[in-house]
Amino acid sequence: MIIPRLFLFISFFSLVLCNEKFNSHVLPRPLILETTQLRELDNEVQLQCTSWRFGVEANNLNPWKTIPLECAEYVKDYMLGRAYRLDLERVSNEAGIYAKSLELSGDGKDIWVFDVDDTLLSHLPYYADHGYGLEIFDPAEFNRWVDKALAPAIEPSLKLYKEVMGLGFKVFLLTGRSESQRSMTEENLINAGFQNWEKLILRGSEDHEKLATVFKSDKRSEMVKEGYRILGNSGDQWSDLLGSFMSNRSFKLPNPMYFIV
Amino acid sequence: MIIPRLFLFISFFSLVLCNEKFNSHVLPRPLILETTQLRELDNEVQLQCTSWRFGVEANNLNPWKTIPLECAEYVKDYMLGRAYRLDLERVSNEAGIYAKSLELSGDGKDIWVFDVDDTLLSHLPYYADHGYGLEIFDPAEFNRWVDKALAPAIEPSLKLYKEVMGLGFKVFLLTGRSESQRSMTEENLINAGFQNWEKLILRGSEDHEKLATVFKSDKRSEMVKEGYRILGNSGDQWSDLLGSFMSNRSFKLPNPMYFIV
Repeated sequence: MIIPRLFLFISFFSLVLCNEKFNSHVLPRPLILETTQLRELDNEVQLQCTSWRFGVEANNLNPWKTIPLECAEYVKDYMLGRAYRLDLERVSNEAGIYAKSLELSGDGKDIWVFDVDDTLLSHLPYYADHGYGLEIFDPAEFNRWVDKALAPAIEPSLKLYKEVMGLGFKVFLLTGRSESQRSMTEENLINAGFQNWEKLILRGSEDHEKLATVFKSDKRSEMVKEGYRILGNSGDQWSDLLGSFMSNRSFKLPNPMYFIV
Repeated sequence: MIIPRLFLFISFFSLVLCNEKFNSHVLPRPLILETTQLRELDNEVQLQCTSWRFGVEANNLNPWKTIPLECAEYVKDYMLGRAYRLDLERVSNEAGIYAKSLELSGDGKDIWVFDVDDTLLSHLPYYADHGYGLEIFDPAEFNRWVDKALAPAIEPSLKLYKEVMGLGFKVFLLTGRSESQRSMTEENLINAGFQNWEKLILRGSEDHEKLATVFKSDKRSEMVKEGYRILGNSGDQWSDLLGSFMSNRSFKLPNPMYFIV
């Protein structure tokens, strides 16, 4: 907490100095911030960053490249604390309730689409080493992490995965990862506890230039043309969920660390 | 704060008693909750209700009838405090940035669609008298309030409204209100500072049975057939924004008080 606190302190103090420009004191002001001032500052950061996070999750901020500098500590606390886990559990539970409410046709054409990265597999270990979204995304570095196939399961998503499979849904995995990453993706998924998916769809050579929304819409369009009914869709990015051939119901997992167009 | 605190106190105490069932004490426990315990309880409610609100704003909770009882005070504090205003300002600013980034054709066919209730006009005065979403929605009572035409403007939305109009967008107002409420709706909008909209579209007799998403999609379909390009859409409900003929970009205003299917 020391460095961010110091940063906030300096920011706050710069603001104070800035306001003093037109109302200058002759005597230098003592470099003291009282506990109550620090607490107010914390509350203000909390308020602003929660507002920013809601902007992200409601898809009002679009696109964005890195988290705001002043929210670095907030995002870290959120990701490592109970709030992120609670949000993951809630979205998994809600999706489960919805899934159970449906009457499936029994013809094997009712499907649930899952995104992979930060929907089924967690990249929190990677982002913990990269400022929780504070650093500009480095695809080469990220791919080295992906190739290790060490990403752990997002447990509430694994629970939902097993639940919908138990209900009779076919599961389609639709990921922005490249076809060249198929084997390590399969390995990682299996090691994390995911099994028996119907299809794992990755970006082929013809898909690499497409925006995620377009790529995923194209693939959903193919599913529909093959007679599948997309009844549920889970993803941590709005680009997993919006576009054409959208699912009846979509479930947005929280992710305040990065944004994919 | 006294009644909700008492409620929390009782809930907490029931939980304690419940846990004690299998580990019973012979002596009665004193009815004392320490300040730190109350603070932890507050933190827990804060955490749970923020998670609930995230679920609402990301459209993961769908449908819901009333706010959770334990979030009554949380929602009230949110609506009356700075957080709601900050969220409104953020969504208005983001929409403004997006609007300015577009190059309009100049043929008068570029439009911005606004919902009315709790997007342009605020029903906070009504909901303040009805538990901020804790009470089951009473359409007759609500319509009596609407008929008074006293709803104030949501100021950040009025700012955006003027901004997009200044940029050359035509503004379409698309509301779930009934055609029979046209005159009071116009009166209320004008008194609140909204002017010069291109069209105000309300539910006609043929629309009354439609879900909001269907009604609004049908109306957007008509706009597109008339050659309009829907470049922006602002609404406090996901049913304002999702469906068919969706806008290029949608802006979800916060509303943790009620949900419209």
